[in-house]
Amino acid sequence: MEQTAYGLRVDMDVPYEQALERTTAALKDEGFGVLTTIDVRQTLKQKLDRDFRKYVILGACNPVLADRALHAELEVGLLLPCNVVVYEREPGLASVAVLAPIPALAITGNDAVREVATDADARLRRVLQALA
Amino acid sequence: MEQTAYGLRVDMDVPYEQALERTTAALKDEGFGVLTTIDVRQTLKQKLDRDFRKYVILGACNPVLADRALHAELEVGLLLPCNVVVYEREPGLASVAVLAPIPALAITGNDAVREVATDADARLRRVLQALA
Repeated sequence: MEQTAYGLRVDMDVPYEQALERTTAALKDEGFGVLTTIDVRQTLKQKLDRDFRKYVILGACNPVLADRALHAELEVGLLLPCNVVVYEREPGLASVAVLAPIPALAITGNDAVREVATDADARLRRVLQALA
Repeated sequence: MEQTAYGLRVDMDVPYEQALERTTAALKDEGFGVLTTIDVRQTLKQKLDRDFRKYVILGACNPVLADRALHAELEVGLLLPCNVVVYEREPGLASVAVLAPIPALAITGNDAVREVATDADARLRRVLQALA
């Protein structure tokens, strides 16, 4: 698992479609449902007629964590759900990255939100470990 | 317009439903389509049987800006689309907040992304001015 300034990533040696399916299942195992799906490739093609790699942005939400965060800080919805991207690295190979909750939610400066972020971080690391 | 650590907000003296409709229209005027909608109240009720105020998270995307950001940094999808929340402050009164793009995207440390954030910031401020 690689850690970037704002994300955690694993490279998977499986095709994009399979990576997407396994990611959704692994998120579910940690209590995250996928509330939103943005097909970036399809959106850029439709809106701008631009070609792009296979790439999806999933909005993952653990309702218990979201509820805690929203009760700690009403406008934290601006930082929810937790984004997960799945994209094709090259044909037959995919990568999965999640927004690292601790740096992303640190912007709130709210201790109760930081506790939720710490819990989410542990769960999302397990998701990526299951995919690695 | 009020500026918080990570958001820009306007209070509107209209009911929630009308605020939501006007927000969607004002975003469109600045080139932002609403790609995703999360009804927070409904989600918390369905998943946890918890009551919550009327509250929606809109995923707003300006395709030209998204395309620029994604070409500058592949994993910036972790920070897209730009969230806009509309919620009921009290019956008959609503607030609208947008994630402030400059601090939110500063986490990337990427100058090209910062330029996109500056452009998005100007557009989103005009959206909120139109709603104020």
